[in-house]
Amino acid sequence: MKTFHISRPDEAIRPALIDKINNLTKPKGALGALESLALQIGLIQQTLTPTLQHPQNVIFAADHGIVEEGVSLSPKEITWQQISNFLHGGAGVNFLCRQHGFTLKIVDAGVDYDLPYEKGIIDMKVRKGTRNYLHEAAMTEEEMELCLERGAEVVRRCHEEGSNILSFGEMGIGNTSSSSLWMTCLTGIPLQECVGAGSGLDNAGIRHKYEVLKQSLDNYKGDGSPRDIIRYFGGLEMVMAVGAMLQAAELKMIILIDGFIMTNCILAAGKLYPEVLDYAIFGHCGDESGHKLLLESLNVNPLLHLGLRLGEGTGAICAYPIVDSAVRMINEMDNFAHASITKYF
Amino acid sequence: MKTFHISRPDEAIRPALIDKINNLTKPKGALGALESLALQIGLIQQTLTPTLQHPQNVIFAADHGIVEEGVSLSPKEITWQQISNFLHGGAGVNFLCRQHGFTLKIVDAGVDYDLPYEKGIIDMKVRKGTRNYLHEAAMTEEEMELCLERGAEVVRRCHEEGSNILSFGEMGIGNTSSSSLWMTCLTGIPLQECVGAGSGLDNAGIRHKYEVLKQSLDNYKGDGSPRDIIRYFGGLEMVMAVGAMLQAAELKMIILIDGFIMTNCILAAGKLYPEVLDYAIFGHCGDESGHKLLLESLNVNPLLHLGLRLGEGTGAICAYPIVDSAVRMINEMDNFAHASITKYF
Repeated sequence: MKTFHISRPDEAIRPALIDKINNLTKPKGALGALESLALQIGLIQQTLTPTLQHPQNVIFAADHGIVEEGVSLSPKEITWQQISNFLHGGAGVNFLCRQHGFTLKIVDAGVDYDLPYEKGIIDMKVRKGTRNYLHEAAMTEEEMELCLERGAEVVRRCHEEGSNILSFGEMGIGNTSSSSLWMTCLTGIPLQECVGAGSGLDNAGIRHKYEVLKQSLDNYKGDGSPRDIIRYFGGLEMVMAVGAMLQAAELKMIILIDGFIMTNCILAAGKLYPEVLDYAIFGHCGDESGHKLLLESLNVNPLLHLGLRLGEGTGAICAYPIVDSAVRMINEMDNFAHASITKYF
Repeated sequence: MKTFHISRPDEAIRPALIDKINNLTKPKGALGALESLALQIGLIQQTLTPTLQHPQNVIFAADHGIVEEGVSLSPKEITWQQISNFLHGGAGVNFLCRQHGFTLKIVDAGVDYDLPYEKGIIDMKVRKGTRNYLHEAAMTEEEMELCLERGAEVVRRCHEEGSNILSFGEMGIGNTSSSSLWMTCLTGIPLQECVGAGSGLDNAGIRHKYEVLKQSLDNYKGDGSPRDIIRYFGGLEMVMAVGAMLQAAELKMIILIDGFIMTNCILAAGKLYPEVLDYAIFGHCGDESGHKLLLESLNVNPLLHLGLRLGEGTGAICAYPIVDSAVRMINEMDNFAHASITKYF
């Protein structure tokens, strides 16, 4: 069984970080979220002069057997068609990566299509889409282990390339359904409050999606452990993202969390290794019903509320300049003593 | 009397903008605030391919006679000391300007100190601080007109330099007091809900500030018109910002709105010329009590909620990358037809 070795950041440096932040030329606390981010990043990197290096956005893509049940407005082929769009640079995630200097990595975790790997897609395909969890487990134990290991492998590559901050995104028609099931099983919030419109269902569509997921839950006979929940309800790209997040925390990298689906992945990662949450920065609260509730249950405040519901990592990347601002603040702002300013509060 | 000629953007281009945005490769509406921003900027610039050119942050600085009454925790000399800090590049606004490619302009609207203009500060000083409005009008009619005209002049310079987007900030110990008075007089929201902690007052301090402002209101015998309110309760930097915003709208520039004080300036500008609001993008909802209420009364949603309360334009500049993302979205994202993707919703 794949294990990770994640430790919480050493707290010894905290007083020095707080002292440095409080003596910058501003009223105490006046830079709000930038101050708490600078503290978190200083703790992660164990330094008073943190840096952000080689940001990368990793998109895990896969298909979902449950789509057969009509839970998504979008047809399954959107998954591979959008990957093609990512390769051509015309998708939402592309302009954001260009804007903020992110490298984009596209990982085939389990797309039900023969993708052109020669164009730079990373082949980590475990199988061509999950099984339909209305009737059986989305994946086997062995497939789940492969997902965790391969997600970790992608992150090790990023680390070797010099990255110390990663965002994760996903492309997988049907994955808000898996997310809703992970959320209800791992938080105890009733399923009804975890199910939303996905890429644009109307009320009747949401009702049908709920009925399918409710039946899937009723049919589930597993032990209810986090490992069993993520295995049974998939998806491959989501479990791979869990492995990626755990590996990133083990390597003391900053993890930028995107929308509803990636928030469920860090939720699951935290159920396996609670320490992973110390490395996570929550980028965005999206429009998907349930995301706000999920963030509240994690007791976290996302940086942005822009009503995005695209996935791909877009919400996380939009939040990157705020994280960058926090790092610049602690490195570039003058302090009261040096600037000869009367200290005020 | 200084007048402005502001027209609302021509609506004829709206359907074409909406059509372009809806055909980008994403579910309709999935990029949330980026989509509404792209629409607004397309309308302002009357084009399907908007651009952001030479962003500048203009800080108007001045002192306030009311500070004699102990309404601020910070001593008055902080105003000029912080200007010196801006010049040396060590303040909050500086690292944000560097990060996002903003030019910083510092304008002396009425600082009670002999500033070193040879270091690049723009001398628009109307007088050395306002009069104390507990006892008399903060400025004369003539001084108010000078503020409006000089604010407009700074913006005309920025326009000649090629800018089409400006953010405005302020430095002026005591200016949350003027802001609270503008807010209560121009919105009708009770004074108590408009008064907050400024740079860090405790509850007793806020109570004292409220009492001083209440007495100032009681002593006021003017006609209650927007022009008279902004003249009577100052400050010089705030009225100059009003003139700057009105000139920016006349020149069809994008106006990025910062925190509590600048939101009061656009409120006042809108009372004089309602069309100015079409050119405003609200960057940030800060921590100052009353800012949220004020934004609600304007019926606007700011882009960020980061708990900043520094002023200087910092909240507006932090929001700039989101605005930039919106412009990149409409210019760089592919559309469904060209990308050969099945259109979904």
